[in-house]
Amino acid sequence: MKKERKKKIDWIDEYHQGVRYGLEGKLILEESSPFQKITIFKTERYGKALLIDDCWMTAEKNEKCYHECLIHPALCGSETIDKILIIGGGDGGSARECLKYKEVKSVDLIEIDARVIELSKKYLSMIGGNAWSDSRLNLQIKNGIDWVKNTKNNSYDVIIIDGADPIGPSKGLYSNSFLKDCKRILKTGGVFATQSESPESFSRIHINIIKSLRQIFDYADPLYGSVSIYPSGWWSWSFASMRNPKYMYPKENRVKEISKNCQIWSERWQKGAFNTIPAFLERELEKK
Amino acid sequence: MKKERKKKIDWIDEYHQGVRYGLEGKLILEESSPFQKITIFKTERYGKALLIDDCWMTAEKNEKCYHECLIHPALCGSETIDKILIIGGGDGGSARECLKYKEVKSVDLIEIDARVIELSKKYLSMIGGNAWSDSRLNLQIKNGIDWVKNTKNNSYDVIIIDGADPIGPSKGLYSNSFLKDCKRILKTGGVFATQSESPESFSRIHINIIKSLRQIFDYADPLYGSVSIYPSGWWSWSFASMRNPKYMYPKENRVKEISKNCQIWSERWQKGAFNTIPAFLERELEKK
Repeated sequence: MKKERKKKIDWIDEYHQGVRYGLEGKLILEESSPFQKITIFKTERYGKALLIDDCWMTAEKNEKCYHECLIHPALCGSETIDKILIIGGGDGGSARECLKYKEVKSVDLIEIDARVIELSKKYLSMIGGNAWSDSRLNLQIKNGIDWVKNTKNNSYDVIIIDGADPIGPSKGLYSNSFLKDCKRILKTGGVFATQSESPESFSRIHINIIKSLRQIFDYADPLYGSVSIYPSGWWSWSFASMRNPKYMYPKENRVKEISKNCQIWSERWQKGAFNTIPAFLERELEKK
Repeated sequence: MKKERKKKIDWIDEYHQGVRYGLEGKLILEESSPFQKITIFKTERYGKALLIDDCWMTAEKNEKCYHECLIHPALCGSETIDKILIIGGGDGGSARECLKYKEVKSVDLIEIDARVIELSKKYLSMIGGNAWSDSRLNLQIKNGIDWVKNTKNNSYDVIIIDGADPIGPSKGLYSNSFLKDCKRILKTGGVFATQSESPESFSRIHINIIKSLRQIFDYADPLYGSVSIYPSGWWSWSFASMRNPKYMYPKENRVKEISKNCQIWSERWQKGAFNTIPAFLERELEKK
């Protein structure tokens, strides 16, 4: 009917170290919360997208590349998965993937910025999906670092850190004291998971995250994948556990439960992704 | 000395399906050859780069992510590696990686566009490296499709297709008749290798390449990696062979010979990269 109506088509570019990555689309909303600048942009390529402080965070038709890789190695491998903690993850995608498992009894989602939640529910409702109305979800607008500090020992089966780059409000999510608190509140049979930046665009931060995790936990390993809207498109997630690398051994019943609906993740994919550590990083991590 | 001199800093963006990927830098040269538009651009992030028809082809500090992944699964796995054929690859990077193997006796490099060779030698000499002066290199400015058509049966141990996207002069490099000719001129114990586009930005072309190879050869498999300057950053290479998937079994002496100088490739990385097929593609390839 309104075919001929002229839509204002624009580009938003994220700039990083002499590289820019832009998507074509239409601005829906731009505002400043007490924590950060938030932008909702309807892209031609990936549907509606969220930017924080001018960095691409997630997009409707791209988010599975990120959320499946962060969640399933942790939830398939942990001994039990009754109680899950997610720090960050205000778009709801991590919660949605966790709540696919029938065994999960509660997901505590601790997001610092209420506006990220409100805007995600309104504009990116496809990403949170049924998670927002699932009675197992306990949403708290709080500082994740304080939450972890104030939580009793051995409280969670899985801890997921789904934060932005380690600048701004997410900075503390990669410090040793925070990671030690995470270990303290994680059950012995549990799995810790965090996004761990790009081995290409943020290689120093990436290496430091793995080294910190290896100091604090018995086992920690990075897994590599592709998230085209993030700097370099080459991304990583890292997993840690005690006694053995539990995240390496997905439990068969859980694999069966979730894999038919996955876009990227499969047991085979995961096995591969734990091995595709580039040679230069393998050498770097072997150094004392 | 000339610190304060103002350099003209610019951006070049490659556009693809509502996405653009740009690098900051300084234009060195832009010209039209009889085949295509060629641009040499000095980027801040990746050193000097080559664009063909406004698409990023290679860059000094990014090219290993591409060339190592295309070459080593083929050359480590082929029964013998005396005689290598490269179609395309005018920047010299594929030839350089092949010539690292002492067993290699000759590399026929068939590039259609003399200007790509000339400009690569002049501006991207780091990429070709010692290959240009290696007496084992036989450089021919010819049409690769004709070359393959006119070559006798069982001539090569390894065939490498290092072409651009299947439009323009590279279009024929993905046709069934060309691939059948490649099989004909490949020795039975040899390996065929081709870049096979992005599973994300060119998923249909990617799937068709794998399906064609599986029809023509006994075995064919894709391998996945990251090339940040290409659309989506998520890239693939596909390998094919007869009797068994030889590219899956790198020979120990060759692995030893080359792996210490690799940036991305290792035996472990390769094993992983053959498994990181995303779930949606694995399902698609299982369909009859």
